[in-house]
Order: sequence, then structure tokens, then C-alpha cells
Amino acid sequence: MAGNSFGTLFRISTFGESHGVGLGVIIDGCPAGLEIDEEFIQSELARRRPGQSKIVTQRKEGDEFELMSGVFEGKSTGTPIAMIIRNKDQRSKDYSHIMDKYRPSHADFTYDEKYGFRDYRGGGRSSARETAARVAAGAVAKLLLKQYGIRITGYVSQVGALKLEKPYQELDFSQIEANPVRCADAAMAVEMEDLIKQIRKEGDTIGGVVSAVIEGMATGLGAPVFDKLHADLAKAMMSINAAKGFEYGSGFGGVEMKGSQHNDVFEVVDGKTVTQTNHSGGIQGGISNGMDIYFRVAFKPVATIIRAQDSVDKSGNSVTVTGKGRHDPCVVPRAVPIVEAMAALVVADHLLRNKSVRLV
Amino acid sequence: MAGNSFGTLFRISTFGESHGVGLGVIIDGCPAGLEIDEEFIQSELARRRPGQSKIVTQRKEGDEFELMSGVFEGKSTGTPIAMIIRNKDQRSKDYSHIMDKYRPSHADFTYDEKYGFRDYRGGGRSSARETAARVAAGAVAKLLLKQYGIRITGYVSQVGALKLEKPYQELDFSQIEANPVRCADAAMAVEMEDLIKQIRKEGDTIGGVVSAVIEGMATGLGAPVFDKLHADLAKAMMSINAAKGFEYGSGFGGVEMKGSQHNDVFEVVDGKTVTQTNHSGGIQGGISNGMDIYFRVAFKPVATIIRAQDSVDKSGNSVTVTGKGRHDPCVVPRAVPIVEAMAALVVADHLLRNKSVRLV
Amino acid sequence: MAGNSFGTLFRISTFGESHGVGLGVIIDGCPAGLEIDEEFIQSELARRRPGQSKIVTQRKEGDEFELMSGVFEGKSTGTPIAMIIRNKDQRSKDYSHIMDKYRPSHADFTYDEKYGFRDYRGGGRSSARETAARVAAGAVAKLLLKQYGIRITGYVSQVGALKLEKPYQELDFSQIEANPVRCADAAMAVEMEDLIKQIRKEGDTIGGVVSAVIEGMATGLGAPVFDKLHADLAKAMMSINAAKGFEYGSGFGGVEMKGSQHNDVFEVVDGKTVTQTNHSGGIQGGISNGMDIYFRVAFKPVATIIRAQDSVDKSGNSVTVTGKGRHDPCVVPRAVPIVEAMAALVVADHLLRNKSVRLV
Amino acid sequence: MAGNSFGTLFRISTFGESHGVGLGVIIDGCPAGLEIDEEFIQSELARRRPGQSKIVTQRKEGDEFELMSGVFEGKSTGTPIAMIIRNKDQRSKDYSHIMDKYRPSHADFTYDEKYGFRDYRGGGRSSARETAARVAAGAVAKLLLKQYGIRITGYVSQVGALKLEKPYQELDFSQIEANPVRCADAAMAVEMEDLIKQIRKEGDTIGGVVSAVIEGMATGLGAPVFDKLHADLAKAMMSINAAKGFEYGSGFGGVEMKGSQHNDVFEVVDGKTVTQTNHSGGIQGGISNGMDIYFRVAFKPVATIIRAQDSVDKSGNSVTVTGKGRHDPCVVPRAVPIVEAMAALVVADHLLRNKSVRLV
Repeated sequence: MAGNSFGTLFRISTFGESHGVGLGVIIDGCPAGLEIDEEFIQSELARRRPGQSKIVTQRKEGDEFELMSGVFEGKSTGTPIAMIIRNKDQRSKDYSHIMDKYRPSHADFTYDEKYGFRDYRGGGRSSARETAARVAAGAVAKLLLKQYGIRITGYVSQVGALKLEKPYQELDFSQIEANPVRCADAAMAVEMEDLIKQIRKEGDTIGGVVSAVIEGMATGLGAPVFDKLHADLAKAMMSINAAKGFEYGSGFGGVEMKGSQHNDVFEVVDGKTVTQTNHSGGIQGGISNGMDIYFRVAFKPVATIIRAQDSVDKSGNSVTVTGKGRHDPCVVPRAVPIVEAMAALVVADHLLRNKSVRLV
Repeated sequence: MAGNSFGTLFRISTFGESHGVGLGVIIDGCPAGLEIDEEFIQSELARRRPGQSKIVTQRKEGDEFELMSGVFEGKSTGTPIAMIIRNKDQRSKDYSHIMDKYRPSHADFTYDEKYGFRDYRGGGRSSARETAARVAAGAVAKLLLKQYGIRITGYVSQVGALKLEKPYQELDFSQIEANPVRCADAAMAVEMEDLIKQIRKEGDTIGGVVSAVIEGMATGLGAPVFDKLHADLAKAMMSINAAKGFEYGSGFGGVEMKGSQHNDVFEVVDGKTVTQTNHSGGIQGGISNGMDIYFRVAFKPVATIIRAQDSVDKSGNSVTVTGKGRHDPCVVPRAVPIVEAMAALVVADHLLRNKSVRLV
Repeated sequence: MAGNSFGTLFRISTFGESHGVGLGVIIDGCPAGLEIDEEFIQSELARRRPGQSKIVTQRKEGDEFELMSGVFEGKSTGTPIAMIIRNKDQRSKDYSHIMDKYRPSHADFTYDEKYGFRDYRGGGRSSARETAARVAAGAVAKLLLKQYGIRITGYVSQVGALKLEKPYQELDFSQIEANPVRCADAAMAVEMEDLIKQIRKEGDTIGGVVSAVIEGMATGLGAPVFDKLHADLAKAMMSINAAKGFEYGSGFGGVEMKGSQHNDVFEVVDGKTVTQTNHSGGIQGGISNGMDIYFRVAFKPVATIIRAQDSVDKSGNSVTVTGKGRHDPCVVPRAVPIVEAMAALVVADHLLRNKSVRLV
Repeated sequence: MAGNSFGTLFRISTFGESHGVGLGVIIDGCPAGLEIDEEFIQSELARRRPGQSKIVTQRKEGDEFELMSGVFEGKSTGTPIAMIIRNKDQRSKDYSHIMDKYRPSHADFTYDEKYGFRDYRGGGRSSARETAARVAAGAVAKLLLKQYGIRITGYVSQVGALKLEKPYQELDFSQIEANPVRCADAAMAVEMEDLIKQIRKEGDTIGGVVSAVIEGMATGLGAPVFDKLHADLAKAMMSINAAKGFEYGSGFGGVEMKGSQHNDVFEVVDGKTVTQTNHSGGIQGGISNGMDIYFRVAFKPVATIIRAQDSVDKSGNSVTVTGKGRHDPCVVPRAVPIVEAMAALVVADHLLRNKSVRLV
């Protein structure tokens, strides 16, 4: 109930702060017999970790994980899989200059209001560092989904006003990991990278959008009322730091369409029931119909800027806050693996949930 | 796990189909001692029910609820509050013409895929009729929130391309219930009503957006990681039939802003820590900061149109589906009380959850 | 969290008070396609209802249930199955003489302490009348288990000091429904019936034990750590009104045994791995091994006696409480179907939970 | 759902195997501001750890824990508290002689049936080593309860046929930690110790009973229907390895009493409503009434004996299994802190749950 767990049958619980001993995750409910490819998990963590390119934070965290339990001779045993990641070189710093100040658009004020005090070192539990645990767990979920032929691809589709207008079908997914922005279009990637560099020079930050596609979907996943597949995806995405909006299928744009335009006509192709268009985004009545699921997640500009800002402190005094250190000028390149991880967790959970819905 | 419950401490479970005996809801966890105003609950149901105006479905459902338990001498006892609503005049109809057909963009196909068969009468459990149960429960949540000075207001901000551009602070909320569209602007309401009537004449449907504002918020509500207040709101909203997108605060528009523009500067006014702007939408790090929470929910055009559409049936044969009966040309006027109800449920739940987070 | 739900994948939520409008249950998670035999459900309710014999309370409740949802053309649809039972003739009575008094060993005092006030009519939510909802839900669970060849049999094994010492294998289960005590031994049944009648004449009550056996068990049910199959059975049984103890397999008696006596030796019989003895009670490490599960549940004497008792009222004044009306002199004959129902719910839940634990 | 978590608002999740990297626990929901006394946690672990006396297993595990998160400047922050304990010297052993054999009354067979294979080293997840994680978490729960004046004391009340007949009020709790058996009576402790030594010499094992008392209880804890306080205690206790039975208050003995003897008469003493007797065991209607809670837990003899036993292997072949190594001849001395820990977790959870049940 304290909100540090996600999922029902494929369920993760994360712990840890950005500047404490470390962080980690327990996966409870991973089916027995799954090959746990540790290199793959590490490679997913590498996609999220700081310092991977020049346009992300230069903080030094190797993010090596240690597998504590739940795997025997390379396979999941059905018991909890725990993974921990230790923080490095975080102990000695001096945070006294910000311990009482409320940084604008950070969680300093709200944590104090909720808990009475807070671990003020680097944002504590509110730091996006927590998402490393999600990525590690999401990697295991991806290994499970792979067994069912389901694959998830995220990419940056917008940075500031630079927007990739093409539908995902016209993009080249092989480009995504070929550029530091993780944009699925090589030319746009260059523009975006330039913009991010410019923003960083200004000591400022900028927002962006991550798009994602789930291909190879099974039909029947999702529950009909509150746990609609897209409702669980929405919660998953909105739980990522800095997320401000979610839309799937036709999304906000679908508002302006008429039913006669928007409806996806069924047809049978090669013995399989499919739809001619896919404004539904692969989900109807909250349940997957086997077509691709696609969605977009909006991220605000990072709150930490390298400029002096007015604020107040815990006692209500006016203060000035000046960001320093090594922060991301734009969160979306590193958000791509997080979006994928959260999507994988949602689909893996519904995959398991779907196993008990029919008598035969 | 079957997805018919929502919330944790203030938890609802709904049941019922559109054309079965009836539907209902259990609220488990409503604190003892709350005055349960049955007239208010009924008035909220009236805002959602069919036939309330000329621009909504003309189906005849009084939606009178019966209070079964959990209230003694007008007050909640702390035990489950159950309410049921019986369906009327639904038994005799003939549905054999659609029982095997898959209506485009309905849940017919996906329910069959998930469960092997379905209650094909009027959509069964996938019908938006289920939301009556949510509105009844949401009314109780509103009664609870009222004790804390928290109020929730929804309104229609877009129908098709007709979009209310003004921020909510410049709107006149007293207009909302004064027009059948539930638009918070009298002039725009007329335009929207005309558009909906035109669309209905065409036998077509159109999408829309419902906006909502939560005022009088306490600070500290929301959990820091997965159950961020806006993540739970997102799930709540996306679980409503026909929802396609959710954004809060600066939303998708915030993507184009720089951090230096987007950050909300803290100041102390009358001894209270507030922010000068509110791009955060009243939530920072997933936790309410006491400022207004505002968000938008996109709804697609209703799938049932009064036109012939191509489709397939359960056996894969090509068929024609022709909508008939009394359906909404645009879902948003009736979605307003549903959006409010779901928001009330989320906030009530986090209000109770917040009671145990501090030692003192 | 308010404790009115039980189970995870096969999950029930009950509502209702003894003297309110009625009571009921939602089953969420019953697999689609199960034939719902309404006559069987009604017959199970008949085994629990008042007035079925001369040694139980003579209160008049037909306990007819109404099926509200979740069943279409006789089969479960996978959506919530709701059933309600209306109370009869309960409105007009006068309870003012007990409204402020704390009846000894009832829940009057504790409800007031917890909630600040209570529905004092007939015990409200604390009445064993709530178990009718459990029996209705348990009947559906039994229908599910029947598909897997699993059957549950409860019987009275002790009333006061009259104790059936024979192991269950030597009893004649066909006797159980042939006598009003539900004892699995005809001679002992007569003795028990006489004792209960004697106790009733004295205006007193007496305790008893219900034993139960689960035959035809599948292997692999139960989770290894907290949700051990017998731990969930223990909770289920101890949640029944008046339960004071639970033991399974060798139980408290096993304490005096040595490991060399207690260990169940494995052997293969007809290609199936079985154990020569079954002190384990069919569960090892919390997981079913396919042998019979057997357990015992202790029930205290009913608190309502037809005698004057000293007590205090809400204001702390000394008062006299005199039980009247139609109460059970011994709870165990009517507890048998409740014990069976709760066992069925536990096993059904673990049956569904077990469907997702292996990759293949 | 995979059963590795316990509790709702004060919720723990454990992970780890007896012979893997290590084990651990996350506590989610511990209120912010609690002083986390690490020495106390370590001292509780010391009460459970192997090698603490001559009558327990001589395995070498220091059971030092590492605090990973959730504590800042000595106080809980409201975020997850994670603790890990590394296993020592476990890697090099050869388990090939037992990897396919089913040890009698162990979980080898049932794990294979459930998951298809198992970590056969030392019992893997089914090992009682998992309870170290519970004791660490229970120590934190005890620190919370201490703030409310609630204290929990467990002691050994039976070993084999040696039974402490005195009620807990007549025992000297200061004796418990003064003898290796943890018996609350010095003379009986000597007898029990001698019996355990004798049993060990025989290469055999023996069962026992742990009794526990919860003093200083608040009123109003526990939920009225399924989550009755004693039902949750029952589940907690029965989830401990080797537990076979649970009873509270009058327990199985209360069966033979009449209502007129068993009922606890209320009276007001020093302005406080109490009961003259306490057959109810401090719980009425599932809710604490402020009187002491007392209960007993039966443990079977440990399954590992130092003798040759017949069994079968995975392929169904007859085999001989011979226990070796360093196992407990009687589990109850080390079970005392585990029983206390689980009781503390239950009460802490209900303490937090009770904070939201009333409007005012």
C-alpha cells in the first residue's frame, strides 16, 4: 500500500535511495524455468545508466547488479528473484547547503509534507535512480515475453518542438540504438542532439516524448473493467519520474475523429481476425486484440537547471537555489529503456493473469 | 486480480452487466461515521443516466439505487456499503442478429478471445452501463472528501475540433450543469451542442475531452514511486470506457517548455507555502503539494454508429453490422460525472492511505 | 484492507448485516465456462440456514439467493458473480434494551471501540449470518473443484466432551447428512444430539469441533512461504465466527512424536508417488502432495445464553444482560457447511494461482 | 500472489535461499520517524541464529544484516527498508547424492511437482533459513509496537510430552532467555534440555509448542470478517516452517466448556472496561478488546533425522536417504523469536490499518 510494488502476478517491489547504500528489486511471481540471461539484464541497465553518451548526465555509476536469489543453474526457480545495485562514491558529499531548501518542481516540499522529514541527499527515494531497479526487473519481463514472441520497442519521438510526425510503421527501428538520442530517424536524431546540446549550454533543460510499440501481441490480455490493459500501461508510464501525459492508439488526436472514421473494420487475413486500421491501438474494451499496441508518453523538462532560482526553505524564508552537478538536459534518451521496462512488466503481468480466466 | 476492484483502503468492487438483472458496487473501507446522503448519491446517478437531455442516449433507465448495507441511522458503520441498481425492460429483446458478429471497435472480439464466449446482450460487462456503479461509489467518496474541504469539478473542454482554450481559472463553473453538454462556457456550449446534434443526424459519433480540477487539496497525498497520485489518476481515467489519453498539469504541451519556464517557484503567502505557477498540476514527485490538481481525459468517438459497417463474425465470415437503438452521439457530457467519480475515489483512497505514513 | 474480501485469484467480497436489508457476495475471478448449478448453491445454503432441525436456532430465514450477474445461459462468463440474500421480518423489532449494553463475549464492546458506534441490531456485521454469503460463494468454488475431482467433506467430531476418536478413514461419511448433528458416526450422533438438547434446556451452550477432509487433491497447490496451503486454510477457518483453534495432519498431537515416527515415507504405487503414512496431512512445505488433506477446527460455546449475566454498558454502568430469542445451543452442526465452503475457497484460489507458476 | 509477502500496510517481502548468495527482506509501509535500532535488530537475529547453544544446529551463520535503504540519520523515512543477510561458506559442497532424492516429510517432492525442478541445496527456499528475514523485519515491527506500549513474549511450553501446564500469568518470563530451551520455568527447562539432548543422541528429533503473550494491547485492532486479528495471527503462525496447529484464548480446550463458564464478564476497573476472565484471549469478534492476547503454536518434529530412511527418487526408484550435517533436534527454542516476529508483524499491520477506520 506504500506504493513501492507494481503488478499482481508478475510483481516487483523496489527499494533504495540515490545516495544511500544502494537500490534493488524483488520480482515475485516469475514463472519457474525461465532462462535468466544476466548479460541481457546488464545490457538493459547500460541503456539507462548515466554517462553513456555526451547528452546525458556524466555521473559515474556502473550500475552493476548482483543477483541474490531465485535463479538456480541459470533458470528461475519460481521463488523471488532479488537483484541489488550498489551506489558508488556517494557518501562523502556535503548536502548541508540544500538540506532545508525546496528546489522548484522537485519533491523536496511534498516529501517533507508527507513524511515530516526527508533524505535530502540527491533526492533520496524521489530520484530517478530508482528506475534502475525497474529496468533490471523489466529485463526479466522481456525475457519472459520473448518466449511468447512479444517484443517492445521504445524510441524518442519528440524533443522540445522537434517532433517526429511519421507513424511508427515508417520508421527504422534499427536506428534507435545507433544515435545517443534514441530517435528512430537518423536525420531527426541529429537535430534533436543539437538541440539538447544547445539547451545544456544554456544551463537549461527541455521536455520530450517517448513512443513505444508492442509487437507480436497475444489476444485476450487485459481485464475488462479497472485493469484494462491500457489503464495499467497508463499507470505504469505515469509512474515514471517526470511523466506528464499518456495516450495510446489514436490518443488525443482521436478526439476530433468521427466514429465512422475511427472504427477499425475487422477482416480475416490468412485465417486470422485482424483490423484494417488500428486506431484502437491494439486494445478493445481493455483487452488486446492481437494488433500492435502503440502509445506515447510525455515528459516535462528536468527540474534541475544550472541557474539560480528563487525559492523558500523549510522555515518559509526566501532563498536562492542553484543547481549544480551532472544532470540530464533532457530525460527522454534515458527514459526509453524505462518505458520499455514498465511496458514489459505490464504485459508480463497480464500474460500470467490470463492463464486462469477460462475453465478449459 | 480479475480487475473488477479499484482502490486500496477506500476500495470498490463492481459487478453487473448492461442487460442482466442489474449492477452494483461494494465500497469497502469507507470510514465509520460519515453521513451518507442518499439524495446526493441519487443526484449524481442522475447526472450520468441515459435520457437526461436530447444529446444523449434516450434509453430508459431510472438508475434508482438500493442501499443494501453498511449504513445505520444515516451513517456509515465502517462495514461494506453495498448498492444495487436493477436493469429495466431488458429481458425480452432479440439479440440473435448480433450474437456472433464482431461490431467494429467494440469489445466483442476481445471478450470472445479472452473468455471463449460472451454475454452478447448490449455489450454485457463491457457496456459503459457499469460506470453507474462507479458514480454511486464516487458520490460516497465525494461525501468523504467534502469533510476535508476537497471538491472536484469536471467539464467538457472539447467536442471534435471545438476546443475550449481558456485555462480553468477563467471559466465559469456555474455554467457546467446549466447546459446539456456540461461545457464550462455558455457560448461554446451552444456550438458544441449544435455539433453533437449535427453528428447525430448523420448517424455518426464524435470524440471529446473532459477536463477536471481538484480544489482544496491537502498536501502529502500520493505515494512516491508506483502509486504516484497522478499515476493512480491516470489509471482511473483510462479505465473509463472510450478513454484514449490522459495528461495533467502542463501535460503534452509541457514537452516543448524549458525547465527555466516550467519550474514552479515556491513562495510563502499568508504563511502557506505555495507555487507562483502551477505547471506541476498540484503534484510533485507523485505527492500533492496543495495547489489545484487539473487534468484532461481524451475520449474517442463512440463505436456504435447508425450505419452499415463491414465486419466478420465468430466463424470468420464477412458480415454487415448496422447499429441501431439509442446510443450517445458523443460520450463526454455523460462522462463528466464518471471522471469526477473516479477522481474522487483516487483522492479518497490516498487520503486514507496517508493516515499511517508517519509515526506521529 | 477492511477485511471483507478473501482470496486472491478466486476472490470473494461479502457485505451485509444480520438485520439490515440483506447480505451478499461478489465472486471475482471465477473462470469462464463453469456451469453454475443454482439448485446446488441453494442446497448448500439450506445446510447452513436456521430452522433446519430441532437442535439449531429456530429463526425464520429462507435464505433464498438472487443471482445478479456473471452468469449467461447457465455458465460463468468470467465477470463478477454477485449473489444477494434478503433478510426477512427484521425491521420492526425493538433493540433499545440492548443498544448500549455490552453482551459478554460478543463483539459489542470491540465494535464500539473500533468504529465509535455500531449497528446493534442482532450483532450487525459481527453476526454469523454473514457466513451465508460465504456458503453461497463456497458452493461455486465446489463446482469448480468438482471439475478437477476434488471434494471436501466436513463433519462434527466433537461436542463438549463427546469426541469421535476414530480417524476419518474409519468413518461413514454417508451418515453425516443423515443426522441433525452432522456427525459421521450414527451412534455418536445420537449421544451428541442428546447432549445438545440437554444444554439447550439449561439455557446454556456448548462448544465443538468440526473436522474436514479434502480428497482427490492435485499436487503442487500452495505457495512456499507465507501463503502455505495450510496457512491459508488456518486463516480461512479462524475467520469463521467462534473458531478458537486449527490443526492439520498430526496437529497438536504430533508434538509428542519423534521424527522417526512422524516422517511420511515415500513410495511409488501404481506409478504414483505417495506416502505410506500421512502425518503431513497432505501438505509438505506448504504445498499439496496429493494425499488427503485433513484438519480440525475448534469452536467455543455460543456467547448468547438464555440466562441473566452481569455486564456493563457504554457509559460504564453495571447492567444485567439476558439473552432471548432463538439462538444455537451449539454452533458446529451449522458450521460444517461453512468450514467446507471456506476450504473450497482456499483450494479454488490456489488451483488458479498454480496455473502461472511454470514457464511450460 | 506468489506468497512471498505478508501484511498489508506494514508489509514485508522476503527473498533468498539457504545456500544461495543470501536472503533478505523489504519492509514497505513502516511509518516515517521511527528510530531504527540496528543493535536491537541484530540481537533479535542472534536469538534465531544457528550455533547459539548446544541444543540447536551447529551450522555457522553469523547472520549479520546489512541495512540497504529506508533509514536516514537513524530514523525510518517512510520508504522501503531493505535488509540483506549473506550466506557463508555454502558454495563448495556437493549435493549430488540428494539432488534427485525425496527426503521424507521435506518439501523436495512438492517443489518438484509445483515448479518442475528445484534448488536442491539445503532445501533452497523451503529452508527455515528464510525465517531470518522475518525476524529482522519483526524486530522493526517490535520497535514500532514499543511506541504504543505493546510487547510480545514467546516461550517454549512443551517439548515432546513435557508440558508446562501453568497459565502464563504464573510463569517467570525473566527465565526465558536464561536457559537454552527458552522455557519460562527454570525446572522444566532443565527437563526439556535433557530430553532434547537425549533425542539428539538417538539421531532423532522431537516436536514442541511455543506459547506467546501480547501485553499492553490497544483496543480496536483487527478487522471484523476475514481479517480477524486471530485469523491473521493463525496464518502468520502456520506459515512458519513445521507448524501444525494454532489455538488462542481457550483454544481446543474451550470446546468442552459451556457458554455460562466461557463467557467473559465485563466490568469497569479504574475507569477502564475489562473482562473478569479472558477465555476470549483478548479478541472478540476478531477485534482486540485490550486484554492480553495469548496463543499456542504446535511444531512437529524436524524432518531431518540422522538415520537411514526409505524413500524414492525423482524417477520413482527406491532409495535410501540418510540425514547428515548439523540440524536441530527440536525446533522450538529457535522458533520463539520467529513466533514473536510474526506476531509483531500482524499487530503492527493492524495498528496501521486501524488508523483509517473512523471519520473522526
